[in-house]
Amino acid sequence: MSRFMNPDYRNLSPYVPGDQPQREGWIKLNTNESPYPPAQGVLDIQADHMNLYPDPESRSLVQALAENYNLEEDQIIVGNGSDELLAFAFMAFQNTDRSFAFPDLTYGFYPVYSQLFGVKAKTIPLAQDWTINYLDYIDVGSTIVIPNPNAPTGLALSIREIEKIVKGNKNNVVIIDEAYIDFGGVSAISLIDEYQNLLVVQTFSKSRSLAGARIGFAMGNCQLIEDLKAIKYSFNPYNLNSWSEAAALAALKDEKYFVECCNKTIEIRESTSQNLKTLGFEILDSRANFIFAKPPALSGEEYYQKLREEKILVRHFAGKRTKDFVRISIGDEKEMESLLKATKKILENQR
Amino acid sequence: MSRFMNPDYRNLSPYVPGDQPQREGWIKLNTNESPYPPAQGVLDIQADHMNLYPDPESRSLVQALAENYNLEEDQIIVGNGSDELLAFAFMAFQNTDRSFAFPDLTYGFYPVYSQLFGVKAKTIPLAQDWTINYLDYIDVGSTIVIPNPNAPTGLALSIREIEKIVKGNKNNVVIIDEAYIDFGGVSAISLIDEYQNLLVVQTFSKSRSLAGARIGFAMGNCQLIEDLKAIKYSFNPYNLNSWSEAAALAALKDEKYFVECCNKTIEIRESTSQNLKTLGFEILDSRANFIFAKPPALSGEEYYQKLREEKILVRHFAGKRTKDFVRISIGDEKEMESLLKATKKILENQR
Repeated sequence: MSRFMNPDYRNLSPYVPGDQPQREGWIKLNTNESPYPPAQGVLDIQADHMNLYPDPESRSLVQALAENYNLEEDQIIVGNGSDELLAFAFMAFQNTDRSFAFPDLTYGFYPVYSQLFGVKAKTIPLAQDWTINYLDYIDVGSTIVIPNPNAPTGLALSIREIEKIVKGNKNNVVIIDEAYIDFGGVSAISLIDEYQNLLVVQTFSKSRSLAGARIGFAMGNCQLIEDLKAIKYSFNPYNLNSWSEAAALAALKDEKYFVECCNKTIEIRESTSQNLKTLGFEILDSRANFIFAKPPALSGEEYYQKLREEKILVRHFAGKRTKDFVRISIGDEKEMESLLKATKKILENQR
Repeated sequence: MSRFMNPDYRNLSPYVPGDQPQREGWIKLNTNESPYPPAQGVLDIQADHMNLYPDPESRSLVQALAENYNLEEDQIIVGNGSDELLAFAFMAFQNTDRSFAFPDLTYGFYPVYSQLFGVKAKTIPLAQDWTINYLDYIDVGSTIVIPNPNAPTGLALSIREIEKIVKGNKNNVVIIDEAYIDFGGVSAISLIDEYQNLLVVQTFSKSRSLAGARIGFAMGNCQLIEDLKAIKYSFNPYNLNSWSEAAALAALKDEKYFVECCNKTIEIRESTSQNLKTLGFEILDSRANFIFAKPPALSGEEYYQKLREEKILVRHFAGKRTKDFVRISIGDEKEMESLLKATKKILENQR
């Protein structure tokens, strides 16, 4: 750190992204990416006019999203990944208590944003069965952010439970982070017209196979979107580059491929879960493109390490409740076969 | 605005980007873009692996930049446009006085960042001849940000003047915003090894013809870069998408084309300036890819409006000192011929 660093930030504990090995030869099941390439249309993009600034409003993409999700254009804002939009939301939607409530086991970035933007983090423990109990989120007096499905558990809330949380916090914004919604959850988008305080955040990084392009979008009441735009235009007006906007449009157009990829992921998730259960694993009932899995006979960290020796990357989270588990992204069939094979070998060597 | 908006931000006055008409048929001389396409290599990029996250450290690009500018890799950070890096710098480098000093006439985003990040803006008037007097910036007790060349004037400081400012503010970071440096200024990069408090920010948007790809980079002492990284990893770790990283690499590789484009811009800037002077314009001595020009016989705003009627966009800034001028980006030869032709017509109609 330099002696010039803002005193507010001297104790930042930044987010630690999952390992991104830049060499070939790894099976990457650690960052919840799609194993499938993006829609063919993405490969056909002509990178024209790159000498000109992008449309700061990303109108083409906003229009297409509005049509796709049956919303008005002024109910949508796009960003450089959903992380950027979540950061904007942490800036914009601080109530007078300046607190944000979120689960104690969840996306690791929420505590980081809290620290960066001077917000009190009110963490609410998951229930004993790892679920989010919606009753814990009624009238908490804080802005709320909940991933649905949650990570790293993969467990989803029903739309009725989400609605009760939104209804139960009329004076605070409720942010539903739907990064993984397309793998079996039910989106809260249908509630947007009814509730002024609901913000739904989604991403092209998972179900649209475009993690490399950094495209997120937030949807909500037009006034909430206006607030996020005020932050964006005070921070980085041209936040989405032209190529990524074109890529998002191409991905959105190919609904058939999108559904296919989601279905394949769901299918492989279910078969992988079944196979691991047969080997003695405890597996939570995931609605996401990953599973949270507790191996038999060895700790989460040991299992993580031994998979790493086989050049298979999964994610392990230290911490009292999570340490026995690993989070495994759902790769393609071949990758999951390799995982199973390596796992059998590891378990046999444990005996 | 919603009733949920953070009270800190209720009076934000966001940056207003230059007009970005999304239809064809306009001559855009209003946002200092390059009129030339990016290097051929950019068109040849294979958008592979877009389903995977980018390298959060953008190592390939950082390596190439280090080689190109003769720096160490830990002296460089890349961003989603230089605007993002400037925002990170406004967050990171607040001294105990929480003030930033910058010229009263300069890039319109500095006051916006000041507002967003709760920083006191200490604006220092330009001299009567529109120059930045380096003596006004000695020991000001604030973090300093100066564009070199400055906008909208296009006037540049010499490297000796920059060095005196850096030397004269040992306890504060001095940020030199070199968005336009490649069109005739001398970069402060050569001072980085000597001064701990110097941060140099550049962009691929102008001289590398990649405004659409949003790529900026900041260079300085490794400790300053570490501070910016702490902000980045607390805000948006994957801030540069994979396609843009590849585009930046391709642009950087084609040094010959880069030099050609810069030289053409300089040449056309000089001839355009000469031609407008002949028509009675006052033109400041620009070292950038734009000129700041005062038309004879009509106000800056009238000239702007009349050019607009001819489908030529330039930028006009209201304000006591700037209102008589317009800022004209340097387009290609044909575009500047159209500008001259339209200008002659406008002046003739004024008689």
